Amino acid sequence: MNPPPNEPLLPPPDDTARALVWRLLGQTGVATLAVLEAGSGHPLASRTSYACDDDGAPLILTSRLAAHTAALEHDARCSLLVGEPGAGDPLAHPRITLIGRALRLSRDSADGQRARARYLAALPKAALYADFPDFAFWRLEIERAHLNGGFGRAWVFTPDDWQAARAARA
Amino acid sequence: MNPPPNEPLLPPPDDTARALVWRLLGQTGVATLAVLEAGSGHPLASRTSYACDDDGAPLILTSRLAAHTAALEHDARCSLLVGEPGAGDPLAHPRITLIGRALRLSRDSADGQRARARYLAALPKAALYADFPDFAFWRLEIERAHLNGGFGRAWVFTPDDWQAARAARA
Repeated sequence: MNPPPNEPLLPPPDDTARALVWRLLGQTGVATLAVLEAGSGHPLASRTSYACDDDGAPLILTSRLAAHTAALEHDARCSLLVGEPGAGDPLAHPRITLIGRALRLSRDSADGQRARARYLAALPKAALYADFPDFAFWRLEIERAHLNGGFGRAWVFTPDDWQAARAARA
Repeated sequence: MNPPPNEPLLPPPDDTARALVWRLLGQTGVATLAVLEAGSGHPLASRTSYACDDDGAPLILTSRLAAHTAALEHDARCSLLVGEPGAGDPLAHPRITLIGRALRLSRDSADGQRARARYLAALPKAALYADFPDFAFWRLEIERAHLNGGFGRAWVFTPDDWQAARAARA
């Protein structure tokens, strides 16, 4: 018997799962962003670089030329897939689907200045364009997540589980 | 002056761009799928393997345990990001956002049998689970695309451009 698709028989996240979240977020600086296309509402997937804010929230830097920027300005809901496949079967490598909303940071705010510093510390080449007027920093406020640790190892982080994972990061 | 975000000043796809589409689709078997979560409509990004059908359409194999399966059963709209980052700056590597709809293939149909054969030829390890009753093949009917060839090299494929790219594949 298979569980219904919306009620998977998954264990609640444990210390191993919480540690894997931060290992994944810390080890790569590239991810795939899913947004809702402005106008059509169609899902769109695009590549993005990211860095992590002081509390682990992903930070991205977007250009107004990118379709995902118009999308996020229209509907802040987004998802970020983190965890690059390595050698061998790509589905055997851990990855996490982060689910939340993107908050555009004002360049002059404390949050915007901290985001810029964190981002450029992690991705120094972005200094070439980070201050162009058509670029902006966004903070992804993560609400829940799906973590896949490889075949047969999966966890769903509810909002409460995600808060516990954030607390476990310190 | 910057162009408005929905009217980028991009050149129409040329032979170089059309060739890059098929090079990207042919060189990797892993991608990121963006769908609309069943119930919430929230964008979700998840990793998937894929193979290409005889005409180049991506084929995926899903489990009912995966959130993207319930999503596609509820709303067929999807996007597939193809083109893995290599060494160096991940945004300098070409990638394509394919935009379309997923069509679930009946296991016993000619399309379903051809899809299974094409998929297992490309990804033979999937034979371990491809015939489980909770797995299904889907064909992604691509309608348009965004191709990013690296910094400063981008093309939008309208539906007409996409048909021209499909014709150029032969």
